[in-house]
Amino acid sequence: MTGQLIGVGVGPGDPELMTLKAIRVLQTADVLAHFAKAGRASHARTSAEQFLPARFIEAPLLYPVTTERPVDSPEYRSTIDAFFDEAAAQLSQHLDTGRTVVVLSEGDPLFFGSYMHLHVRLQRRYPVQVIPGVTAMSAAWSAAGTPMVRGDRALTVLPGTMPEAEIRERLEHNESVVIMKIGRNLERIRRVLAACGRLEDAVYIECVSMGRQQVMRLAEKCDDHAPYFAMILLPDPWNPS
Amino acid sequence: MTGQLIGVGVGPGDPELMTLKAIRVLQTADVLAHFAKAGRASHARTSAEQFLPARFIEAPLLYPVTTERPVDSPEYRSTIDAFFDEAAAQLSQHLDTGRTVVVLSEGDPLFFGSYMHLHVRLQRRYPVQVIPGVTAMSAAWSAAGTPMVRGDRALTVLPGTMPEAEIRERLEHNESVVIMKIGRNLERIRRVLAACGRLEDAVYIECVSMGRQQVMRLAEKCDDHAPYFAMILLPDPWNPS
Repeated sequence: MTGQLIGVGVGPGDPELMTLKAIRVLQTADVLAHFAKAGRASHARTSAEQFLPARFIEAPLLYPVTTERPVDSPEYRSTIDAFFDEAAAQLSQHLDTGRTVVVLSEGDPLFFGSYMHLHVRLQRRYPVQVIPGVTAMSAAWSAAGTPMVRGDRALTVLPGTMPEAEIRERLEHNESVVIMKIGRNLERIRRVLAACGRLEDAVYIECVSMGRQQVMRLAEKCDDHAPYFAMILLPDPWNPS
Repeated sequence: MTGQLIGVGVGPGDPELMTLKAIRVLQTADVLAHFAKAGRASHARTSAEQFLPARFIEAPLLYPVTTERPVDSPEYRSTIDAFFDEAAAQLSQHLDTGRTVVVLSEGDPLFFGSYMHLHVRLQRRYPVQVIPGVTAMSAAWSAAGTPMVRGDRALTVLPGTMPEAEIRERLEHNESVVIMKIGRNLERIRRVLAACGRLEDAVYIECVSMGRQQVMRLAEKCDDHAPYFAMILLPDPWNPS
């Protein structure tokens, strides 16, 4: 009799943006896993703090490297793959004894989250369930009050870690664009936006839904310091009649 | 002293996928507005049913036409624009008397929702707040257990109402794609997917997060009947080492 793996989306940061289902499922956890940088609190665990069950086994999964390294370098890939292999092995020990293992995920588990790497490694061996959550990008355009995409238009979501030429090509072919994972990429993203004539429309957001939230026109941001989880929105231009 | 307009995302259908914040804000409503087809219940209102305040003024906003008409026809545009103008005027009468007007929105209010049309018409005249919600697409890939997009890849979200050539072009240039608003467009979407060699990977989902939810490989769906809110997922091909 094996246990169940459950990926729970805890939303963008504000605990009030958690769903009733996420809160209920959290209560069933025997083991609570969450990803974090060594020495830092897991954002997802902080969001869920007030809803944790009375007793559980804590399973922190500490990244061996940061995601600010070039993700296409072979060293990065092999280090991070080995880390996910080990994390999956650690959780499967709990699953083999019949425990319910909840993995806390910022935002939505299957949308740019580390949970996916456990999911693909464990889904064939154990029952798996995923509880969707509010994404940081939904919280971002809500905070900015910016209608993003409507009617028969498309939305493109890009990571700011993409090669410059690829970002440029996608900006030129798409109206509504979200650029995630800004961090150290802000200077070159700003350059690409200027080259495409889209700098004036760009909205910059950091620490969305949290106390330190900042929303501003990118053109008015005076420096290129940005956290990794900052975001840029390029809304569909829209002038209602 | 004017009232406040609040767009509240109620999530994909399952009431348990509402956020704590959406539920709290609902309680403050003097007026509850929701979009529906004439003669049909509003999906958003059905999701929120058990969380409505004890007393409120009901403001149903009934579409004069369905969105299955060609959205680029001038008749459609003028009819629907006049409808949104009237709906905004109706709500501003309440706002002018100081009432809090909550607009219930399926999924997330600023992501392909009708709420946007009120937002852009009223945001300069009244205080406005938007509460993000879980999107139907997050619920869809969670139900399918399909990691959609990871690391340094992009996600594209298309409406199935787009011209065939545009859908094809985007499918050829993007790995992870969500096609929303399927309805009567399924036959031609299937044709485009086959032409791009992506039919085998496509996942079809209808009535996501509701009792009648169906998830299957599109290749195994024997007919081309689909509700308007059905969705097709094309996940990023992924073979973990």
